[in-house]
Amino acid sequence: MVSERAGNDAKSGQPASSVHLQARCMDLDTRGKPVAILRSDSPLCRAEGFSAHARIHLRSQHDEIIAELFQTGSELLGTDQIGLSIPAWRKLQVCDGDDLHIAHPRPLRSLAHVRGKVYGQPLKPDALEAIMSDIVRGRYDEIELAMFLTAIASRALDDDELVALTGSMVDVGDRLEWTQPMLMDKHCVGGLPGNRTTPIVVAIVAANGLAIPKTSSRAITSPAGTADTMEMLAPVNLGLSTMRRVVEAEGGCVVWGGSVRLSPVDDILIRVARVMDLDAEAQMVASVLSKKIAAGSTHLVLDVPIGKTAKVRSRADGHALARRMESTADAFGLVTRIVLTDGSQPVGRGIGPALEARDILAVLQGVDDQPLDLRERAADLAGELLEMGGAAPPGQGRALATQTLVSGAAWRKFQAICRAQGGLRTPPSAPAREVMTAADRGTVQGFDNRLLGRVAKLAGAPAAPAAGVELHVHLGDRVEQGAALYTIHAETRGELEYAREFAGRNGEIIQWEAR
Amino acid sequence: MVSERAGNDAKSGQPASSVHLQARCMDLDTRGKPVAILRSDSPLCRAEGFSAHARIHLRSQHDEIIAELFQTGSELLGTDQIGLSIPAWRKLQVCDGDDLHIAHPRPLRSLAHVRGKVYGQPLKPDALEAIMSDIVRGRYDEIELAMFLTAIASRALDDDELVALTGSMVDVGDRLEWTQPMLMDKHCVGGLPGNRTTPIVVAIVAANGLAIPKTSSRAITSPAGTADTMEMLAPVNLGLSTMRRVVEAEGGCVVWGGSVRLSPVDDILIRVARVMDLDAEAQMVASVLSKKIAAGSTHLVLDVPIGKTAKVRSRADGHALARRMESTADAFGLVTRIVLTDGSQPVGRGIGPALEARDILAVLQGVDDQPLDLRERAADLAGELLEMGGAAPPGQGRALATQTLVSGAAWRKFQAICRAQGGLRTPPSAPAREVMTAADRGTVQGFDNRLLGRVAKLAGAPAAPAAGVELHVHLGDRVEQGAALYTIHAETRGELEYAREFAGRNGEIIQWEAR
Repeated sequence: MVSERAGNDAKSGQPASSVHLQARCMDLDTRGKPVAILRSDSPLCRAEGFSAHARIHLRSQHDEIIAELFQTGSELLGTDQIGLSIPAWRKLQVCDGDDLHIAHPRPLRSLAHVRGKVYGQPLKPDALEAIMSDIVRGRYDEIELAMFLTAIASRALDDDELVALTGSMVDVGDRLEWTQPMLMDKHCVGGLPGNRTTPIVVAIVAANGLAIPKTSSRAITSPAGTADTMEMLAPVNLGLSTMRRVVEAEGGCVVWGGSVRLSPVDDILIRVARVMDLDAEAQMVASVLSKKIAAGSTHLVLDVPIGKTAKVRSRADGHALARRMESTADAFGLVTRIVLTDGSQPVGRGIGPALEARDILAVLQGVDDQPLDLRERAADLAGELLEMGGAAPPGQGRALATQTLVSGAAWRKFQAICRAQGGLRTPPSAPAREVMTAADRGTVQGFDNRLLGRVAKLAGAPAAPAAGVELHVHLGDRVEQGAALYTIHAETRGELEYAREFAGRNGEIIQWEAR
Repeated sequence: MVSERAGNDAKSGQPASSVHLQARCMDLDTRGKPVAILRSDSPLCRAEGFSAHARIHLRSQHDEIIAELFQTGSELLGTDQIGLSIPAWRKLQVCDGDDLHIAHPRPLRSLAHVRGKVYGQPLKPDALEAIMSDIVRGRYDEIELAMFLTAIASRALDDDELVALTGSMVDVGDRLEWTQPMLMDKHCVGGLPGNRTTPIVVAIVAANGLAIPKTSSRAITSPAGTADTMEMLAPVNLGLSTMRRVVEAEGGCVVWGGSVRLSPVDDILIRVARVMDLDAEAQMVASVLSKKIAAGSTHLVLDVPIGKTAKVRSRADGHALARRMESTADAFGLVTRIVLTDGSQPVGRGIGPALEARDILAVLQGVDDQPLDLRERAADLAGELLEMGGAAPPGQGRALATQTLVSGAAWRKFQAICRAQGGLRTPPSAPAREVMTAADRGTVQGFDNRLLGRVAKLAGAPAAPAAGVELHVHLGDRVEQGAALYTIHAETRGELEYAREFAGRNGEIIQWEAR
């Protein structure tokens, strides 16, 4: 089953020299990274010199990838076989024994543009197109992706570069077209734990007859993304046709953007940005807008929380980000309204997918002890969209939004949307919990949102969906010594201990003034 | 064999919660990266929440590492076992069945300093100490290393930062102490193919009674490092005691620096810098000087080739680099002399470990068709060291160096050094070759050193040591149509074809003027 081929197809962009081997699934979960394994004593691979290199180009009948290359001397793999990790296996869509074409990857020319940016040269549109095109084809490894993200964080993109980056991110993915003339959208730049207004806003806006087909992302550096939280209430991995059906029927949806291949480069970049815990302004703007533009949105309201420990730390920074968002959106004909909001403390009580989902249900159902701050925030943002879409006269949006919640119309609409997405779910509860208490009596003076997020992440969120932090106090609350400040929720004893230990060492998570 | 332990040793810096598993070698060569594999259905690992995370902390009786975590459902691994890749296995020094302590890695606090640098905050000495300390313990993964290297390439370090970086790189490794009062050293900042003067310089300097215990590195982005080339002539992976014995006996040596743990962080950074193909000035200066300072050198001559396609492109850049090198070296009491040399074309004929080794032998043996440019360059640099060390009066160093070559004293000393390092070797020859010829008659006007290096690398250098490029022409040579310009050497047919195809598409590798 082994055959050789000497090619000379430089013009076609295919590697020059290549061999064929049989695919073999190695049952190895490599967390999204394509990995291939060759026998170190395979004569053919030695003859072709694959063993001296770290990466390999693989092509099946269906797709092509660049995989990281490991070697083994184990006889579990034949010398005419190539072992594939589960992500490589899935991407190539092969079966055991299928013929796989392997070759040296071509030199990555677009990387010269990234290096140029590191040293201060601006990125031209064709350079960004080349980079995005290589990234979406899986040609950048993690080191190269980290270099790109660090370069654009360190050497801020100018307006032309940012428009070009956004446009090229849109271009390498799918683009949705809708029959509706207006498509509403909302986004929060994040950094504020628990600020999960989207499902409530979608319910309010759709209940008032406007179309709002919302695609959301999973967490980047936070303990939960909107998609992670919505998944606690309904399926979010919807294909394009299902998403269309939901929007046609109910006017709105909340689905994971990655499942519809809108700006797929964004998902690749986010995986690396998550490890780096680095939010580059340009990556943030392009990430948000490329998804919206690709989704076909026409009107966008953007929630920018401002707070010492939120993602945006001052109103000046907020205005600067708003200006970049608006000018970039404008280049693509997307009408955008920015709302600077209070980011001094978490919104609602829960931090983490399931805990946030419970807050959302409480607001939509209008229960007595609902988190009012979450309800107010959602009504503000929905009100802007109702005005932008003409469902409410100027100045009347907020009142209409509140009325839609009070009447139960939003809750009925939300249930209908969840049913259309595959069924309303009940969020899970965490089996392991620990209450963190006040060491002294006093008044709550501040929250470190980043540390709170870190506790929720160490407890397992978002991968462990029931994990997170449940807050019992807000700014200005008076607490007695020993009173409950927050509860850590975890799915496992080990994670609970891990988060608790970190929280114990960081007393500044909640600051208070003794009295 | 599975046991649990709940710890609360926050102050000791140990992870809070952990379990024990049996080590098992997976016979998987992961190119230096420690990888661990767990059974996805191991109840204990699920209970501890390891499955939700990408990295894991492992500790044996001998050492500790952070490993990348993969999962498998395969029954080849027991649920009470943890599979280790060969690099993880070697670092932990375990045997099959040995008890291994596994835990969640602690949050990487030093990364906050790296993020600060990305956004323009200077790196303080304690921040650099913390970063270097974490890197040397294997706590930074490739993404984080790439972020650090990109940050210091993009946001140039100031003099204080550079001294602190260099010092902290020295501090986290070993430091050699010698009985001799003066220790000579030389270094080339690279970027000029074939410029392999070190073994010749060491032989000349040692033959004149000065001590020159040379530690060299392997290739970063070039087709060969000095250690790669020297390895063609003698063993270079010498431990510290062997290196001392060689220097005591012969006054000089040429060994791989990595085998004596001088500035071990440098080797970790270089592996990532190699993929990035990015040479940050600060990394370059700290990399060079930390090795020299740790090696105990007192006098250093630095060869800085200047050329359009060399690493340093103009005399102005060369002077700037020289100033940074000198001021940083000065902070550590290292006397440094910088020599700006001609970097417009390769030195010698060979590019690649074995081909360069043949040039070195030709110069030392004084054969008729020796590459004179390599001989002149080596005599210049050795001459500086002979003057700095007082073996020659000012202005007389070069003449003494040439005399040492002509008399055969340098060749005798080199043979003695090689014998002391483990035996003189004969460089290998490449079985696959292709001669690249001139398309027209004309005069050679220029070389693209970077493209030449790329051809040698695509041919397999330095991993395939016989691979590389053999030049047949120099600047100003008149060539007829069809005349041989250079020969590509490869160890395999596939690599030869790969390099040839790249060379065919890049006619500008050698530029000439038609006549």
